[in-house]
Amino acid sequence: MHPIEQAAVVRYTRADGLAEALRGADALFVYDFLSTAVPGAWHGADRLRWLHIASAGVDPVMFPELRESDVVLTNSRGVFDGSIAEYVLGTILAFAKDFARSLRLQQERTWQHRETERIAGRTALVVGTGPIGRAIARLLRAAGLRVSGAGRTARSDDPDFGTVHESARLNEHLGDVDFVVAVAPLTEQTKGLFDASAFAAMKPGARFVNVGRGELVVTGDLVEALRSGHLGGAALDVFETEPLPADSPLWTMDNVLVSPHMSGDVVGWRNALVEVFTDNFWRWREGRPLRNVVDKDLGYVPSTG
Amino acid sequence: MHPIEQAAVVRYTRADGLAEALRGADALFVYDFLSTAVPGAWHGADRLRWLHIASAGVDPVMFPELRESDVVLTNSRGVFDGSIAEYVLGTILAFAKDFARSLRLQQERTWQHRETERIAGRTALVVGTGPIGRAIARLLRAAGLRVSGAGRTARSDDPDFGTVHESARLNEHLGDVDFVVAVAPLTEQTKGLFDASAFAAMKPGARFVNVGRGELVVTGDLVEALRSGHLGGAALDVFETEPLPADSPLWTMDNVLVSPHMSGDVVGWRNALVEVFTDNFWRWREGRPLRNVVDKDLGYVPSTG
Repeated sequence: MHPIEQAAVVRYTRADGLAEALRGADALFVYDFLSTAVPGAWHGADRLRWLHIASAGVDPVMFPELRESDVVLTNSRGVFDGSIAEYVLGTILAFAKDFARSLRLQQERTWQHRETERIAGRTALVVGTGPIGRAIARLLRAAGLRVSGAGRTARSDDPDFGTVHESARLNEHLGDVDFVVAVAPLTEQTKGLFDASAFAAMKPGARFVNVGRGELVVTGDLVEALRSGHLGGAALDVFETEPLPADSPLWTMDNVLVSPHMSGDVVGWRNALVEVFTDNFWRWREGRPLRNVVDKDLGYVPSTG
Repeated sequence: MHPIEQAAVVRYTRADGLAEALRGADALFVYDFLSTAVPGAWHGADRLRWLHIASAGVDPVMFPELRESDVVLTNSRGVFDGSIAEYVLGTILAFAKDFARSLRLQQERTWQHRETERIAGRTALVVGTGPIGRAIARLLRAAGLRVSGAGRTARSDDPDFGTVHESARLNEHLGDVDFVVAVAPLTEQTKGLFDASAFAAMKPGARFVNVGRGELVVTGDLVEALRSGHLGGAALDVFETEPLPADSPLWTMDNVLVSPHMSGDVVGWRNALVEVFTDNFWRWREGRPLRNVVDKDLGYVPSTG
């Protein structure tokens, strides 16, 4: 028996039993972080005070009734930072070293020498300056890339990014860099941020990496920018519709790397998510301040300091 | 006309004209660094004083007549360091993040979530402590791995490796690490260094990366260690026979990444190689000390300091 089960009545439920299970509950732990069941079951939340979600992005639970309620929302900030940063560096190296083509040539038993690219000295713009974006910036910089960021407010002395551009003027800065990494939270402001105008503003041959949310991107515009050859490639771990539908053109494009929303999910990730909840549970139980409290107007946990 | 062509009579030749072209020549630039033509044409070298090779490894020209002669041998040390280091980090990330499987699943349009691995905190042993090995050590360390080295002499205070083990006692240390990177020069001492006993000494699931020379490895033993499942994978850029023969089992093994001896060859590499030769040409012409003089007993350029 988990210590939490000794300290509280714990109900486990799937989506179809959620409304019933919510009745009388003080706290809700949304473990299936992509579940869309919470809004439809909200009528059962007759005394809920706290909702914790096993993800960094809180967009699946940002429905109006929760936003307007007094329910405190916390997320799993921190669990995915290092893993996703490594994943992004891996995709940048995969593009630079042409690994996908090496694997296709290997399948054909074809020995074909090519010239590849350095990553040292290349430039990357990380769109999203939360903890995951910062971990990405630090790792890419350690590997020799020149990094800048894009976030809510422009600044020039950020410890991880150096220069941070204002996301609202993103397109003015997209043409400066070789790699664009999307890791912004999904909010009303960032939805569809990467559209035809953004892709057109990117440098010819630039690569686009999305480890944020699929809805940051207008998928049709991305497909067109890849098809035209303007973009050099895309590494996509998240999609507007997940799982990615079998008829999506993204599956079969040579310059696209598709992965199934797993960039942060290293061995042990589920335990790590439970530990974040457990830590907050004891804080809540003992009346101490919760960690990772989401600003429901912003749609993410604001940076401290 | 290249400035060198104004300062000297330059003869360009393929393998079949080499003996004739060597007659009367003072210097030889071996641009096709994998060519085996030099020993057979050596009888034409009637006044040769300097041989420069467009590679880091000098094994293709380490034949007895050259070793015993007074001909000075120089190599292209430095050109490949950063490129190969990036390539090695890329293969380590490809293993940790399971990129090869993602690409195969993409070809089948299959969405299949898996748990992947962190690289931070994992361990790597770099076998070979020349400039390329050092660049690998620095980059892997910057990316969060814990790195040690193996070289001619053991030491514990190396600036890049920290601890360097003695290559002659390599097998005692292979069991400690997650990734083994082979980048040693090919000499009588290192030929076949990675044999059945070495692979047996590695940790179950360890990955092996070879960016040195194929002859460092007993290929049949490597294939067996991969087939048995003892090794977790291998990334191979060099092979005992190049191009890798179409009937090699390495082409079709799921846990093997084959690339065609190109890990150091980034855009501009050929110009960089010519520049190294050109710099040494003017030094030679002006009687200044040459750079990258190979110790023909050791088979590589000894470290300075």
